Amino acid sequence: MTSKARVVIVGAGFGGLNAARALGKAALQITVIDRKNFHTFQPLLYQVATAGLSPGEIAAPVRSILRSHKNVEVLMAEVTGFDLERRIVQTPDADIPYDYLIIAAGATHSYFGHEDWEPLAPGLKTIEDALEIRRRVLLAFELAERQAAAGESELPLNFVVVGGGPTGVELAGTLAEISRHALAHEFRSIDPRRTHILLIEGGPRVLPTYPEDLSRSAEEQLRGLGVEVRTSAMVTLVEPGAVDIGETRLPATVVLWAAGVAASPLGKKLGAPVDRAGRVPVQADLSLPGHPEVFVIGDLAAAKDEQGKMLPGVAPVAIQEGKFVAKLIREEVERLGSNRNPEGAAPLSRSVRQGGGFDSRPTFHYWDKGSLATIGRAAAVAQFGKIHISGFIAWLSWLFVHILFLIGFRNRLLVFIQWAWSYVTYERGARLITGSTYLPGWTAPKPAASVTSERPVAQEIHSGTSK
Amino acid sequence: MTSKARVVIVGAGFGGLNAARALGKAALQITVIDRKNFHTFQPLLYQVATAGLSPGEIAAPVRSILRSHKNVEVLMAEVTGFDLERRIVQTPDADIPYDYLIIAAGATHSYFGHEDWEPLAPGLKTIEDALEIRRRVLLAFELAERQAAAGESELPLNFVVVGGGPTGVELAGTLAEISRHALAHEFRSIDPRRTHILLIEGGPRVLPTYPEDLSRSAEEQLRGLGVEVRTSAMVTLVEPGAVDIGETRLPATVVLWAAGVAASPLGKKLGAPVDRAGRVPVQADLSLPGHPEVFVIGDLAAAKDEQGKMLPGVAPVAIQEGKFVAKLIREEVERLGSNRNPEGAAPLSRSVRQGGGFDSRPTFHYWDKGSLATIGRAAAVAQFGKIHISGFIAWLSWLFVHILFLIGFRNRLLVFIQWAWSYVTYERGARLITGSTYLPGWTAPKPAASVTSERPVAQEIHSGTSK
Repeated sequence: MTSKARVVIVGAGFGGLNAARALGKAALQITVIDRKNFHTFQPLLYQVATAGLSPGEIAAPVRSILRSHKNVEVLMAEVTGFDLERRIVQTPDADIPYDYLIIAAGATHSYFGHEDWEPLAPGLKTIEDALEIRRRVLLAFELAERQAAAGESELPLNFVVVGGGPTGVELAGTLAEISRHALAHEFRSIDPRRTHILLIEGGPRVLPTYPEDLSRSAEEQLRGLGVEVRTSAMVTLVEPGAVDIGETRLPATVVLWAAGVAASPLGKKLGAPVDRAGRVPVQADLSLPGHPEVFVIGDLAAAKDEQGKMLPGVAPVAIQEGKFVAKLIREEVERLGSNRNPEGAAPLSRSVRQGGGFDSRPTFHYWDKGSLATIGRAAAVAQFGKIHISGFIAWLSWLFVHILFLIGFRNRLLVFIQWAWSYVTYERGARLITGSTYLPGWTAPKPAASVTSERPVAQEIHSGTSK
Repeated sequence: MTSKARVVIVGAGFGGLNAARALGKAALQITVIDRKNFHTFQPLLYQVATAGLSPGEIAAPVRSILRSHKNVEVLMAEVTGFDLERRIVQTPDADIPYDYLIIAAGATHSYFGHEDWEPLAPGLKTIEDALEIRRRVLLAFELAERQAAAGESELPLNFVVVGGGPTGVELAGTLAEISRHALAHEFRSIDPRRTHILLIEGGPRVLPTYPEDLSRSAEEQLRGLGVEVRTSAMVTLVEPGAVDIGETRLPATVVLWAAGVAASPLGKKLGAPVDRAGRVPVQADLSLPGHPEVFVIGDLAAAKDEQGKMLPGVAPVAIQEGKFVAKLIREEVERLGSNRNPEGAAPLSRSVRQGGGFDSRPTFHYWDKGSLATIGRAAAVAQFGKIHISGFIAWLSWLFVHILFLIGFRNRLLVFIQWAWSYVTYERGARLITGSTYLPGWTAPKPAASVTSERPVAQEIHSGTSK
């Protein structure tokens, strides 16, 4: 029996995975727990939602990624709570003890109290969400074609994206691209190029966390792609087939939600106070106040930079936090356990009991390497320090960075091929409608309508009658 | 308004799609109706079910495939029935008239009257089926690991495949390959190599439609991969967690159904007699008796060869039937409509009314180019006329043919890369568990079990107590 200190990591997103990899070579026993068996490369989820990539191309099994780290165990389980006193993570079928706990449970959508809007306006946080969005978007075109072919009044193709942050901008831009290019020549009764795409942002400009000039550029690029952008517009109601902005009712065949983010509900189960978005305020070393052995990182953490400004919920923050916490733990265990006795008795206890345990911990500093937001084909904005770029070069940077950070050589190769293919052909490779054929607010027209007003020529023939 | 003859094709599988493409250049108006918006390359469905490929890589949108044929219209709709007298195909929101009708609606699973077994033993006919099988297979390993890590008695990994035809053989062989290679070193508490895979066949040998020597070879190759094969064994009951063969009860964590095929229920809606498997007996020209303007092709047709032997439900038969019927229609319309008047009045009527309509139609001849069945890594059997091949060469032929026949250059490239990748690394690229985490027959062990019997070393430390 070893007496290695035991680290439990909850969540295999960017934060958790980077912590696990950085701890993977230390003399520690690591358990990674996630509800899913795979890590999702969230920055490319919108590509799955818009039929550009398949789920398997932006995801990789957690245990595959961590396979070479023999001290890491992976469990697919739902964490239901914590017992911070007994130092236990609770799951439905086991209590999992820890010496150090890293909580990296991420975030989900927020409907700001209107949770009943969710079935009408899916958000984009998981592979399942992406497939649901893909299903609705593609289905809308199919239903419109069917209805038009049947001679019914044409189903208006109004796509409404709520929220002008990076996800909303990506979705709106790519929907425009699809309707103007990929689908343009494949329908006979409708013209997909006439699809109306509306991006609604509550604040005064899209990409509110970006510099103003880039927001303006993003808005121009969106308009260039055919997206209508409405800023300072708050959605007050979502109903099947419609969205209200105050008194104005807008028709909406498909509504996508990119407006709000709420931290994982696991944050509230720590017993510590959380902020309005459900995030857990942490110390400068990213630990939970009063619990130096518990760390909260990634989108779930309310961490601040030196100026007291909240760090954004983006992948680079989570990655750096994961690595920082891993290094801290590794060094602390080494320092505290340096006079470990050869029989392997509890190594950390002496120095801790002597009060030298968690003093003088380092402070986390986020190194902001820049921000990139893609808009559509050859359209993006980028900020690297004081350098602001728009358009094709920004888009190329975005492509490069996203292929580079994808996990797994196979995924990188497949995604690169698909993007090259899409760029040249304008096609989207994963246009499958799976699951139900229900679309909120859509009702089938009455049967018995003919697909064409034209009479089939041979009907009278085969039956031997004539006019 | 044109007066082109109108051809409606129901189903965009191999038969329907090949008919549509062969008609795509004729002076006809074609409507292809399918419930799905995509064509599925069924021979590779087992690769999706076993996490080797993503759905988007073996499927392509029907309207994409037929895009260049401007006289072809594609409708995603469920066909609910036919009115053969009025020459109408019924869908929920429109009646679609035809001059010629080609029904290529395919087949589904048959549980031989035990439809209640379906939720316990999914079959493999659609992308959704494949994803459900993938979910169950991968989930079983995850649950076993979780249970073992919690110190509970280990969930036995018993996979039972019912049916020793090509699909059952592929599934069993690939499951063996995955458990022995792809997953072998990724778990810490279980050894996936000890997974028990059982293939049950009711008849005396696997691959019953193949020559006996190849059946024997397939069985040997399966055994070599670690599959237990039981022939002349009939499954009499499927329950959560178990399968009965007569009096013998066998534990079964996951049961897959590859035993029975039933033709699409649309066959029964034609009002003509169907055979025991629900197939529609057709004339030598593949038309419905009494309805020369209606053709039934593919798995739905009970077509016979010159010796009166039923043609098998395989892709090459459907493809050749689709092309045959398309050519027949094209030539018939040309012949009958050759003295079409310039104003475009009903072109076919004269000669038909004169009784010269459907005489002297050609007879369909199936050209059997051979059969290929894959078993697993470098394992397959092949028959080309009198030449019987087993093992690596058969497997290479299988790979070559399946990449060649995949629709779309993009899919061919992606599948080739993934296979090459899997062959070199033994990895499976699409190991995602999406959807529910329920497995029939599995119940979570009681909570409060510890993941290790070992006490965490620092628990006593941080809290300042000691033994």
